[in-house]
Amino acid sequence: MEPLRIAVAGLGRMGRRHVQNIIHRVPRASVVAVCSTDLHELEQARSSPEYAEFGVTVYDSYDAMLAHPGLQAVWISTSTDVHASQTLAAIAAGLHVLCEKPLSTNMDEIDKVVEAAKANPHLKVMAGFSRRFDASYRDAAAKVLDQNTIGEPFIVRSNTCDLLDQTGFFVRYAPRNGGIFVDCAIHDIDLSLWYLSDPVPKACWATGTLRHHPELAAAGDVDNAVGVVEFHGGKIAYFYCSRTQAHGHDVCTEVTGTEGKVSVNVWPRANHVVVADGSGIRNEVQPEYWQRFEDAFALEANEFAEAVLRDGPVPLPIEKGVRVMEIGRALQDALRTGEVQRFDEGGKRL
Amino acid sequence: MEPLRIAVAGLGRMGRRHVQNIIHRVPRASVVAVCSTDLHELEQARSSPEYAEFGVTVYDSYDAMLAHPGLQAVWISTSTDVHASQTLAAIAAGLHVLCEKPLSTNMDEIDKVVEAAKANPHLKVMAGFSRRFDASYRDAAAKVLDQNTIGEPFIVRSNTCDLLDQTGFFVRYAPRNGGIFVDCAIHDIDLSLWYLSDPVPKACWATGTLRHHPELAAAGDVDNAVGVVEFHGGKIAYFYCSRTQAHGHDVCTEVTGTEGKVSVNVWPRANHVVVADGSGIRNEVQPEYWQRFEDAFALEANEFAEAVLRDGPVPLPIEKGVRVMEIGRALQDALRTGEVQRFDEGGKRL
Amino acid sequence: MEPLRIAVAGLGRMGRRHVQNIIHRVPRASVVAVCSTDLHELEQARSSPEYAEFGVTVYDSYDAMLAHPGLQAVWISTSTDVHASQTLAAIAAGLHVLCEKPLSTNMDEIDKVVEAAKANPHLKVMAGFSRRFDASYRDAAAKVLDQNTIGEPFIVRSNTCDLLDQTGFFVRYAPRNGGIFVDCAIHDIDLSLWYLSDPVPKACWATGTLRHHPELAAAGDVDNAVGVVEFHGGKIAYFYCSRTQAHGHDVCTEVTGTEGKVSVNVWPRANHVVVADGSGIRNEVQPEYWQRFEDAFALEANEFAEAVLRDGPVPLPIEKGVRVMEIGRALQDALRTGEVQRFDEGGKRL
Amino acid sequence: MEPLRIAVAGLGRMGRRHVQNIIHRVPRASVVAVCSTDLHELEQARSSPEYAEFGVTVYDSYDAMLAHPGLQAVWISTSTDVHASQTLAAIAAGLHVLCEKPLSTNMDEIDKVVEAAKANPHLKVMAGFSRRFDASYRDAAAKVLDQNTIGEPFIVRSNTCDLLDQTGFFVRYAPRNGGIFVDCAIHDIDLSLWYLSDPVPKACWATGTLRHHPELAAAGDVDNAVGVVEFHGGKIAYFYCSRTQAHGHDVCTEVTGTEGKVSVNVWPRANHVVVADGSGIRNEVQPEYWQRFEDAFALEANEFAEAVLRDGPVPLPIEKGVRVMEIGRALQDALRTGEVQRFDEGGKRL
Repeated sequence: MEPLRIAVAGLGRMGRRHVQNIIHRVPRASVVAVCSTDLHELEQARSSPEYAEFGVTVYDSYDAMLAHPGLQAVWISTSTDVHASQTLAAIAAGLHVLCEKPLSTNMDEIDKVVEAAKANPHLKVMAGFSRRFDASYRDAAAKVLDQNTIGEPFIVRSNTCDLLDQTGFFVRYAPRNGGIFVDCAIHDIDLSLWYLSDPVPKACWATGTLRHHPELAAAGDVDNAVGVVEFHGGKIAYFYCSRTQAHGHDVCTEVTGTEGKVSVNVWPRANHVVVADGSGIRNEVQPEYWQRFEDAFALEANEFAEAVLRDGPVPLPIEKGVRVMEIGRALQDALRTGEVQRFDEGGKRL
Repeated sequence: MEPLRIAVAGLGRMGRRHVQNIIHRVPRASVVAVCSTDLHELEQARSSPEYAEFGVTVYDSYDAMLAHPGLQAVWISTSTDVHASQTLAAIAAGLHVLCEKPLSTNMDEIDKVVEAAKANPHLKVMAGFSRRFDASYRDAAAKVLDQNTIGEPFIVRSNTCDLLDQTGFFVRYAPRNGGIFVDCAIHDIDLSLWYLSDPVPKACWATGTLRHHPELAAAGDVDNAVGVVEFHGGKIAYFYCSRTQAHGHDVCTEVTGTEGKVSVNVWPRANHVVVADGSGIRNEVQPEYWQRFEDAFALEANEFAEAVLRDGPVPLPIEKGVRVMEIGRALQDALRTGEVQRFDEGGKRL
Repeated sequence: MEPLRIAVAGLGRMGRRHVQNIIHRVPRASVVAVCSTDLHELEQARSSPEYAEFGVTVYDSYDAMLAHPGLQAVWISTSTDVHASQTLAAIAAGLHVLCEKPLSTNMDEIDKVVEAAKANPHLKVMAGFSRRFDASYRDAAAKVLDQNTIGEPFIVRSNTCDLLDQTGFFVRYAPRNGGIFVDCAIHDIDLSLWYLSDPVPKACWATGTLRHHPELAAAGDVDNAVGVVEFHGGKIAYFYCSRTQAHGHDVCTEVTGTEGKVSVNVWPRANHVVVADGSGIRNEVQPEYWQRFEDAFALEANEFAEAVLRDGPVPLPIEKGVRVMEIGRALQDALRTGEVQRFDEGGKRL
Repeated sequence: MEPLRIAVAGLGRMGRRHVQNIIHRVPRASVVAVCSTDLHELEQARSSPEYAEFGVTVYDSYDAMLAHPGLQAVWISTSTDVHASQTLAAIAAGLHVLCEKPLSTNMDEIDKVVEAAKANPHLKVMAGFSRRFDASYRDAAAKVLDQNTIGEPFIVRSNTCDLLDQTGFFVRYAPRNGGIFVDCAIHDIDLSLWYLSDPVPKACWATGTLRHHPELAAAGDVDNAVGVVEFHGGKIAYFYCSRTQAHGHDVCTEVTGTEGKVSVNVWPRANHVVVADGSGIRNEVQPEYWQRFEDAFALEANEFAEAVLRDGPVPLPIEKGVRVMEIGRALQDALRTGEVQRFDEGGKRL
């Protein structure tokens, strides 16, 4: 069987890592092309001995990359504002697509992509919610949803807390990200829908504060926020997102049910090492999502490649992202306005 | 020095334990009297060899107990609905008082007690927020407030989650307790005010669900609830309270600051024992607040006795409970109505 | 019932704490007298308002203290070299005795005390192995010995590791303590006999090293040592003792059985507080045995008082310490000589 | 660059996993051939679609496999008794070799392989101590050896404890493995040499017991053993190995230094999931070494491939295994005889 010929759009921190992951951990796929519009990223890519060794062609235009001979699939890892248009272009070019979260911060754009995907059922169009591929989150899902370990699950608490970025990188990118609940809590919202079996939102409220990044005020955003979602049927999810943690990338989830609780990563650890010294007993914490989720990204890439090569269903169809984004937007609106945002019984915003 | 002659009102689970604690761990106090109106409790007390040994007189009326010869102080451990009136009666009788939380679910009653206490400055009138006497919460306070371990604290997460009570005891008592945020989250609210240096509330919202105790619906209450409080000045507290935990009494608090995070009891443990067997590696969890806070109750009693005997200030003047209860009531109202409850810049409900 | 009139011999760190513990946590006992031969300790005791308040008479001679009117019992908390003679004198004076571990480093002296205790069955003569009164060690015993949680226990690992003492106190006291296995591992040996149901030793070996306290070399002692004991019947205990830990008082025990493992305090924690900051996630560790075992000492004192007052058996008869010391001495000999020390099937040294 | 053409000898549990690992996680190597003498394993390999897809030729003879056209390197994953002869044959055939631990249980054989490797410096001959490639053990090494986190390291405690095998597989294989200290503690011995900077052994002693696998008695072996090694210069290592754990594969290491302690995996966890229910709070444990060390095996394979392709030094030259095996043999002798085994100052057995 020939490996899947895949192109990666975007060579930022994430895009570069996906290229590495596909080369090193996805034997059934080959990265045949990459693209970027950033001169520094292009320079790096063109001078990479590894890209040369593994036959990766570097493009400075997304459209040019789509025309790469024999290309079968695209992994979109650019900034959020072009996710939807690039996904549509890939579909139009007859290519399979895996698009990073979030698909868009604009609900109309999201609808268009979902329609295009439906109109092209022969193409695999997948949403990139990487935590769904993490071994621990999957084990939690098996316990909660299959093994009935905790009775009926009804509350999810989930955090995405990033290490404080002192390089300025985060602040530069922030204006395009749609706000803290859309950019940062999106995985947590997705997890709550997963573990609570796709409940329908009823109301939500949020509040936040600015502690380290005053530049975010201009966009009405915050660097720390708490939000609560009430679902129809008596289920609840609540989230804490932060851009300003001192100790590392701290991402945890707790699912409470009628008979118990399952949690993931409530005590984050970089590895198995513990140090005891004059300051007590301590472990280090992974600095970024990548150290925590590298394996998940590899599995995601393998499952996408398998789905395409064997013409099976993708693990996360693109429409899975729609409700996630509706809730993220509502939380962001609640944060901005201070008002409760409500949904009808069908989950439609009121 | 003669030990302080103290009476304990109420011989329910808590009252009995306070009697034990004062006998066994407060050398500067003697329990000279107790009272109850419950026939079973009276019977138990009257036949107790220990009460006889340590000279505890048993009364069937609170007023009769107040007239016990030489009595100096009262520890009020009855049900919430009589806390305020009993405190007022004790003050009127010229006695020092330690009243269990909450002082009342009625703000007017609270005001009357606070006024009576102010009018009798020679009497020690103390609020019984036991967690303020716990070694771990005090260590956290030292780190957060004195040692600047986490920079400026701005978010508190705090849980009070009780083991599911399958005896029916909790449900019988529930109608008098004022609701889950007033009865259960009151300590968490108090902790948030402590660690955030008495911030002024701005808005709050809450939601809840009924999973095990449908009887609570009649009183508009729930058995699991999440609430968020926004304070003026960009501070936030959020709470989860539950009556239905499977694993034990799970009470934790996290304080996030600009430079770090301090948490208390995020992983609850009954003791230092760990078992490894076919089900993995596990520890047990304390079943009730008593196992977690027995030492705190002993310290509270000792500090109260010292304050009276040495005529010093009590560690927690009764008025400390006012704002706590205002926030508890607002969360309960938010839970009931689904609407955001707001406060002005002085902390007055709008 | 009148409280037990007890005297405490020795006012070093430990003796003073026992006095406190009996005053504050043993309502059925009164400290009526103390003694010391140290001028500084005597000065402190004579000027203590608390000793005055609770009626504690201070003696500068053990014999004078034994003649205190109405005295019923003695708690011996002096240095090891006088434990045995003081215990014999108390028995001769018709007093009940609780003697701190170890009874003696001399096996002949130990035998004499055991004989004296046997000859005076009306007197309670108790060995002070405090860990037997710790809630966690008792829970472990319940699991291992009563509840069959781990099948048949056959290996015990146990550590006693002290925080490095930089004050010189430890080194000054060391020459009288009998060596690291006698002074430090004695509790671990006792625990191994408890959890393995009094097995008979067959052979042992040990090795050690000197890292911080070169002064110990003169007495043939070390500041870190590892020892292994093989018991008849295929059971094993192994120990690590240290005087030089950087992080605190680290005392743990693991019991491995045919169906599982129970451990106590493998991850030591000062309290329930955890700090997350730039150095990772950490907890502090208790600095001394007292913070770890204060509750155990209180329970020990209460159980001793109850045994005397109610004329019941003491929880740990003095002869329980004999085999413990035989094994401690053998390990110390192995450490000194480098040779395996062997016992016959009756546990007699070969 | 062409990928390294590698063959894997042995298709038992370990061999099959190495094939998977090389296919999936080593882009610079290709498995071109495998061999086995087990009919069932051959049948499985010949019918594997994946082996077909990735071009793996299946041989029923090691010698035939060595003659595979274009073969460059061999990964030896057969049973211990043929490791040395197969390594010699591969060297004789001019092939690079990675040989699983232990190279042999016979010191003469080991010497012959080391000599052959020295005589063929153009060939990479590597010892397969997989823990040296584990991220946590490497982090511990960085802290202990490079960053001086714990001052001077002087004691290593290290365990290798396997889940009880109830399939009979382990017992069938046991007679060829050289005994528990040679087969099971070999990694722990290697780690102690690493963290203590290649100390020279002075004396060792060991004891053990048979609890679940009476069949081992015939070979003079046990299923649980404790051993202590004293090194010249006042360093100590001690080991616990077990074949009979109830909770999983429990492998941990602690390095104590003059200023602190670094530990690896003292609390083993299968993943980041924790369950709280009526039995307390628990995590599962990885069942086998593979779940714990899969990443380490992938890194080992990648580093071996890189060393060959770029003609650099291998991370673990074959002679690194000599002292490890000398100590393992001495511990096994101590276990068998009950006598202390001693070494001279050059590390030569006395």
